[in-house]
Amino acid sequence: MDQETRAPGRTGKRAPYANGARKRAELVEAAFQVFAEKGYLGLSIRQIAEDVGTSHTALLHHFGSKEALLEAVLVLREEREGPWRKELISERGLLETVPAVMRHNAGIRGVIHLDATLKAEAISPEHPAHDFLFRRNEEFVASVCSELERELEAGRLREGCSPIILARQITALVDGIQLSWLYDDSVDMAEHLQAFMDLIRKGDGEAEA
Amino acid sequence: MDQETRAPGRTGKRAPYANGARKRAELVEAAFQVFAEKGYLGLSIRQIAEDVGTSHTALLHHFGSKEALLEAVLVLREEREGPWRKELISERGLLETVPAVMRHNAGIRGVIHLDATLKAEAISPEHPAHDFLFRRNEEFVASVCSELERELEAGRLREGCSPIILARQITALVDGIQLSWLYDDSVDMAEHLQAFMDLIRKGDGEAEA
Repeated sequence: MDQETRAPGRTGKRAPYANGARKRAELVEAAFQVFAEKGYLGLSIRQIAEDVGTSHTALLHHFGSKEALLEAVLVLREEREGPWRKELISERGLLETVPAVMRHNAGIRGVIHLDATLKAEAISPEHPAHDFLFRRNEEFVASVCSELERELEAGRLREGCSPIILARQITALVDGIQLSWLYDDSVDMAEHLQAFMDLIRKGDGEAEA
Repeated sequence: MDQETRAPGRTGKRAPYANGARKRAELVEAAFQVFAEKGYLGLSIRQIAEDVGTSHTALLHHFGSKEALLEAVLVLREEREGPWRKELISERGLLETVPAVMRHNAGIRGVIHLDATLKAEAISPEHPAHDFLFRRNEEFVASVCSELERELEAGRLREGCSPIILARQITALVDGIQLSWLYDDSVDMAEHLQAFMDLIRKGDGEAEA
């Protein structure tokens, strides 16, 4: 690793750089909330600026465009919520992890609201997040599917279950139950995913054949 | 039923009434597509008028407000897709009906897109369709639940299944799989719901005890 990679403030003026980065991070956080509540499509860059409490020139200075701001919000969302799930799956296995993720998700309403809003809005292929969200979804389905294949080989799934069908069912169930919960937070998301895992798990007595 | 209820054109001038009604129906159809594609929140009445190919004065003349137009769209959606499902359930039972409804839904992309868009957008309690969509969802869950109770009593459900948990799972699965299918129409919605019904149905041999 060379000197330049280690030291971001090349000119020595660290404070302005740090301030700019901090301001940018604050704007991304604020935009995150705005997109979750109101979606992305219907808002102009002026309206977003107003909602996040800055000028539209400042917003353009930091991000260049409305699309780039959306991208920054999506990157933040991934950084925050992506990596630890993968670790959990490899530690505890899929059947335990999905209900645990649902319990966690009940504490991050803003993220779950953003996901639901953007996923519906970006059905139209013209939406700037369409390809990204489609790809993210397919990656999720594929990773759940490969975990299920492992479970199947280990003899932990009920007879006749198809990993790819189950993977899409789990993905759909997560999306759908999050939507129900967003309308009514007395819906216990983890309980519904746990019940599904119990349905697909091989019954007692057959388990460790 | 009295004379007035039977004859809507009280003055005898039927043609203008019929023309007005036809025009109104056309506008509702057009708005249906617009709301499905772009949502409702982000659009002004002027933008909607432009998208449906009329003037905003004409739109206000027919509906009075943007909210009333949304209501008309939701009423149309219910009239078109609501009643026959209930008949099908009482004829064929829930376990057969849900996959059949999914097969049907694969032919009405516009309706399914509208449902997905509005359901996500109306998570915010301030959205004019929030209460309506929440109530419609709860009614759906309740009707599926009462069908499942019947299946349970008839000995057709796997041991240990809870009708209310299953009812919310089925509702979530329908919402989620429709979303997947809206992104990728090679996803076979009926197959995924059928596989779920097979999971909760009592295994062969136990079936008609």
